[in-house]
Formats: sequence, C-alpha cells, structure tokens
Amino acid sequence: MMEQEIHAQAEAAKAASYRLAVLRTDERNAALSAMADALTAHTDEILRENAADVAEAASAGTRASYLDRLRLDEERVAAMAEGLRLTAALPDPLGREDYSVRRPNGLEIRRMCVPLGVIGMIYEARPNVTADAIGLCLKSGNAVLLRGGSDALRSNRVIADTLSHAAYGAGIPQGAIQLLAMKDRAAVDVMTHLTGLLDVIIPRGGAGLIRRIVESSTVPVIETGAGVCHIYVDRAADTAMALRIVENAKVARPSVCNAAETLLVHESIAAEFLPQMATLLCADGVELRGCANTCRILPNIAAATEEDWSTEYGDLILSIRIVEDLDAAVTHINRYNTGHSETIVTNDIRAAHDFQQRVDASTVYVNASTRFTDGFEFGFGAEIGISTQKLHVRGPMGLDALTSTKYLVYGEGQIRGSVPAKK
Amino acid sequence: MMEQEIHAQAEAAKAASYRLAVLRTDERNAALSAMADALTAHTDEILRENAADVAEAASAGTRASYLDRLRLDEERVAAMAEGLRLTAALPDPLGREDYSVRRPNGLEIRRMCVPLGVIGMIYEARPNVTADAIGLCLKSGNAVLLRGGSDALRSNRVIADTLSHAAYGAGIPQGAIQLLAMKDRAAVDVMTHLTGLLDVIIPRGGAGLIRRIVESSTVPVIETGAGVCHIYVDRAADTAMALRIVENAKVARPSVCNAAETLLVHESIAAEFLPQMATLLCADGVELRGCANTCRILPNIAAATEEDWSTEYGDLILSIRIVEDLDAAVTHINRYNTGHSETIVTNDIRAAHDFQQRVDASTVYVNASTRFTDGFEFGFGAEIGISTQKLHVRGPMGLDALTSTKYLVYGEGQIRGSVPAKK
Repeated sequence: MMEQEIHAQAEAAKAASYRLAVLRTDERNAALSAMADALTAHTDEILRENAADVAEAASAGTRASYLDRLRLDEERVAAMAEGLRLTAALPDPLGREDYSVRRPNGLEIRRMCVPLGVIGMIYEARPNVTADAIGLCLKSGNAVLLRGGSDALRSNRVIADTLSHAAYGAGIPQGAIQLLAMKDRAAVDVMTHLTGLLDVIIPRGGAGLIRRIVESSTVPVIETGAGVCHIYVDRAADTAMALRIVENAKVARPSVCNAAETLLVHESIAAEFLPQMATLLCADGVELRGCANTCRILPNIAAATEEDWSTEYGDLILSIRIVEDLDAAVTHINRYNTGHSETIVTNDIRAAHDFQQRVDASTVYVNASTRFTDGFEFGFGAEIGISTQKLHVRGPMGLDALTSTKYLVYGEGQIRGSVPAKK
Repeated sequence: MMEQEIHAQAEAAKAASYRLAVLRTDERNAALSAMADALTAHTDEILRENAADVAEAASAGTRASYLDRLRLDEERVAAMAEGLRLTAALPDPLGREDYSVRRPNGLEIRRMCVPLGVIGMIYEARPNVTADAIGLCLKSGNAVLLRGGSDALRSNRVIADTLSHAAYGAGIPQGAIQLLAMKDRAAVDVMTHLTGLLDVIIPRGGAGLIRRIVESSTVPVIETGAGVCHIYVDRAADTAMALRIVENAKVARPSVCNAAETLLVHESIAAEFLPQMATLLCADGVELRGCANTCRILPNIAAATEEDWSTEYGDLILSIRIVEDLDAAVTHINRYNTGHSETIVTNDIRAAHDFQQRVDASTVYVNASTRFTDGFEFGFGAEIGISTQKLHVRGPMGLDALTSTKYLVYGEGQIRGSVPAKK
C-alpha cells in the first residue's frame, strides 16, 4: 500500500522529468520567483503548521537544540524565499557544451550538460531544506522526490504544497515535486530501491542514516557529510598562524562537518607549540585528548584511544598526535580521514606541495582553516551538500552536481564498417 | 580464508594507490612501454597457459563462439602489447585544472584531476581485457583489482604476472596490480563489499552479471553495456539513407551493445518504407517481429510481444513498431530504452532538434548509425566500457572516467567568521 503510493509518486516525478528537462532557462527562473512570492504570501500558514510540529516534538521531550533546528519564524521563512530568488539568479547549469569534436568521417559530436532526471533527497530536522532542495532541483531541470524528517512533516508538507502550487501555476510540469507524506521509516527503504525511477539519492543527516542508505540502496547514492578533518602543524609552520587556524577550525562552529577533529604536530615543535595551543583552547572550553607523547607535554589532558582518531566529535573536543615527520602525518590522515578537508600549516614550499599531492581528500589546504569547504565559500552560489566520495562529484556540490551529460551527434547518413556480404 | 585473501589483496592495492597517484607522467608511460615489451617477450608462455584454458573449456563442452573469445594467438598477444603502447601515447588525464577561482578573501582555489584510487574490474571470457584494464588503470594513476572469468584463469594469471613484474621493475609501486586467482564465484560478492578499499567497480559482461553486481554492491558501480537501441524513421526521412542506416545498425555486428534492436517508423511512410526494408533485411537473414500495424503491411512476419520492446537480442532479430508521430516515438524510446544510443533519420530540422532534446540516452544521433557509440569513434583513444547510467560518466568511457578531482586551496592564514567570544 505504502509501497504502491511511493511508486506512484516516483512514476509521476519521472513522467514530469522528461517535460521539465526541456523547459527554457527563463521558464524555470520565472517559476522560482513565483515560488518565492508564494512562500512569503503563505508565511502565516507555514508558521501555524510548524508550530504544531514544534509543539508535538516538545511534548515528546525533544531536546532544545533539536527544537531550534525544527522551528521556523518569519525571518527563516523570508530566508527560504530569498534563497529561491538567489537560486533563480544563478547561471543555468544546463545546455553548456563541455566537449566537441568533428571526426574524420564528418560526424559532429557535442557533449551537453543535461539534468540527472529525478533526484531523491532524504534529510532530517530542518524544514528549510525542503525549500532549498526543491529550488536547486528545479533550477537544474530535475524532478524531485523528498523524504524529510517525520518531526517536520506538517512543516514540510505545507512548504512543498505551497511551492508545488506556485510552480505548476508558473508552468513547471505537474508532478515534478513529490514529498513522501508518511511517517513510516520503511518509506526510506522503498525509496532506496526505486531503481530505474530515481537517478540518484542524496542523503543529508547523521552518519548512521547515511551509512544505512549507502549500504542498502540499489539507486546510486552520493555520500555526504562525514568530516574527520585534520590540521597538520609542520616544523616550518608560522605558529601564531597555526594557533589562529586551529582555534577557528575547532571552535567557530564545532557541530559542522568542516570543523577540525584532530591536530597533528611535528615533533620538533611540539614542546613549544602544544602548551600555547592548550592554553588558548582551554580558554575556549575545548577538551583535549592526546597521544602518549602529547600527554608527556600536556600532563593534564586525557589519553586518546584508537577510536578517537576516527571520531567526528561534532563538539568542543580535539584529539592531538605528535608525528615524526610529514610522511607520518600523511599516513595518519589517509588512514583515519573521511575524505573531507585537511590543512597543513607551513612556510616550506616542498612540504606544502607534498602534503597537497599526497593527502587523499576532497579539499587540501595550505595555511587556511578547514572551515572554508562549502559551496558558497567556493564560489558556487549554492550548496546541495559536501560529497565525501570520489565518483561523480567530490567536495562541495553546486548545481553542476545535479547534472549529467548527453552526446548529440549530427551525421549525414554515416554508417560504420561495411555490412557483411550477403549470404 | 578466501575473504581474508581478497581483503589482503585490496589492502595492498590501496597502499600502492597512494604512491602511484604521485608518479609523474613519464614514469607511468615508461612502465607501460616496459609492460608491452614484456608481453611480447613472454608470448610463448602466455600461449601455453591459454592453450590449457582452451583445452579445459573445450573438454567441458563449451561452444565454439565462446572458445574463440577465450583463445589467444600470436596476433592477439601482439595486439595487447600494441594496446599498451597506444595507451602510453595518450595524453595524461591527471593534473589538469578544470576550475579555479581567487575568492574575495584571497583564498586561491584550484580543482585538479586526480586518480580515483583503486578500481575493481569484473569481466568475463576475453583475456585481453586483463591487459587493457591494467594499462588504462595505471595510465590514469589507479591501482586495480581484477576478477576475470574463471575459464580464463590461467591466461589471466600469466598476463597479470608478466605485466606486474615488468611494471614493478619500471617503478610502479608493488601491489598496484592485483588479480583474484580463485575460481569461487563468491569472490565477486566479497569484492563488491570492499567499501573503503575499492573506489569503484566496473563490471563488463552479460546483463545478468551486471544486474547482480549493481543490486548487491556497496561499492559504487558504473553500470555498463546493456543496449536496447532504436532507430526512428521520421516522415521527413531520406528513405534510402534510412535503409542504409538500419541495415548497418542491425546487421554489421549484431552482438554488440550499440547495434539496433527496434525500428520505429512514422505511420505516413510505413506502407512504402517497410516492404523495402523487409526485402533488404530478409536478404541479410534478419528475423522481423512487428506490431499489429506492421504485420498488416508485412503479413509474413511474426508479431512482436510486449517483451520484445525491452529485449536486447544481440542477434539478427529486429522488432518494428509504427508510430503516429515523433511524440509517440520519443515516448516509446524513453519507456523501453536502456539509455544507450538512439537515432532519428529525418531532414526536418525541428524533428531532429526535438528528438535530440527529448530522448533520454547517452547518445542521440541525427542521420547516423547507432554503431558509432564507442570510445575510439568518439576520439578518446581508448575505451573502458560504455556507461548507461547518469552519475559520474555517461556514454563511452575514456581515461577521464577513471579520474576524480581534488580541491587544492592556498591561503595565507585565512580563518572563517570569528571565533566565539571567550566565555
């Protein structure tokens, strides 16, 4: 029953995707503007439904930080509308040609950027993701099937309804926006097996959710979000700069995936550098956990266990390891990282180059905070998430991540080889 | 036991991949040349092992066409060596920059082409795939874990041993080339669950093998090969050209994935066109299966069933359907195709444009045979396979398909936002 309902929604999205793929840029942009206006016009209704979600979650004893992510106010609704307008203003990712050749036989081959088709999004608490995802998918010519957090169901429903109504009124093909409106967790399993209907699933949420989807999905998945990010302070580091970068990467926003989790320090500067670092971070309220050598220099901190090296704390905790050289730092990172963001602090050009070449991650920095890994900071004007895998897209995902290609070949009757002689 | 052995091989490949990724272009190319020389030098040994595989398969009653694919001779070994030399001569896919920006805060961001890491290849009979795959993976800086057909195990082993020895002698890191040397089919299941060790699996073989891998693998898979390709003969077609193209696409090499399986004909020309087509193709020995309207025009052919429309015959069989217009042709194709290659034959510019825009496939032709979909014909100089999915790569895969990207960011101490005020 639920399975049939989800299939019907996916079929509708698929049918719409073919018509959506051939809409012009100005048609898609006009729809995004109309959708932004509709959000603003329906602010009261959206806040009413959201208040019901928040009240229900609160009465179930949900913790305050979670309620804060769930809660909308006028300002947040206005920000969603503004997000849609900014999306409309971005360059169209479709229709660009990224390869072309005229072959000796006269065939003219062009490779064009086209939509993926139907995108599945699975996400948790924040209802603003509903508006963001719909906006980015339509901008890139894709239909979308959304599965939001069940605590936010009323909010997601009113947002999706408001946007769908405005979109279809502005010429987006009926059915292009689909929200799964059941709370049943089994809906996720149905969704991850819609092979042939969904072209990709992008999960956004906790590590457990993402792992479960990656392991069970038969639809291709873009893995996002896990960030065990490192900062390596080289022997040739400007230590004042290193202090600033480590503090920023750990303290500015510890809950996000581009925050640093582990500090690696070259042994020749550890005795001087680590006490300064400890003084600074302790004042910020950071808990430190060190390797045996670190604990000899900082006797008051806890010992790091093997588990610490692969843990994304998402909190004011930092693990510290002293390494004998750059090679040991690279080996540690390639063993424990999640392919997200890594930094070296150094003034040595060879060390910087080797580190950038040898570290296996989406983004490798020299002398900058890991916190810049983000679609807006990279100049994409939007962000769908941060891919920690290597296939299709790696690192911050802008609109291009929601596209594929198609070869268009123009001939004048060319055939290949000769037809075998008649028998 | 077998699982541990495969894990150990994958770990060795992973360790080698980090060192391989930083080899220079000339180092990788020199290794490919040494490998080509080694193949030639070991021709006798390779032919001896291959003869044992062929003898065993023959005594097990394997059919002749399969034995022919399995069999090597001096010419085929020479062709493998020549393939490695051609691969060495191709441009290096690594190290190119495809995005760069200097941000307002002074950060310099560059996106570089890097290897995927470790590539898993699962394939069937032909032992030459072993040499091709090793060559293309090393050229693109990737380690490789190979699982060939068990009938070709002796041949694959001697080829992989010969190439590994030459490669390691020429500076390729030890362990970069791994062949699974067990016949047990369960090895494929172990391989498709090497998450974190393999970056991608590329299966090449029958539809059943590929489907099984796509459905069970937790490692990302690039789907290849299935081709239910269509030719639509429009009302405005040059019918002499249409006859040439259909005959070429069906008859020239019916067993390959870019051969045509279904002919769609506009109703206004069907009565004139189909009898000419039938005369031509019957002389070629092609069996025709038609829709009800086709059978009224060609009363001697069999009726096509629903199953025919989604069947890749791989044989001299063609299904035929009369459609009322271009819209019906596009709808049929988007419903039954496998996303491979589709052709329209027309002199009408609007029909050609609409067809290319609306058909959802890797390659959409105007007035040319579907048979050109191939890495060499597209100018890539190599082919790993033909992707029928939309993520990462679509259509013929050249060396670029074996690469990912890495952002290299250069800063001078930049931090993002301010660290929260001290408590």
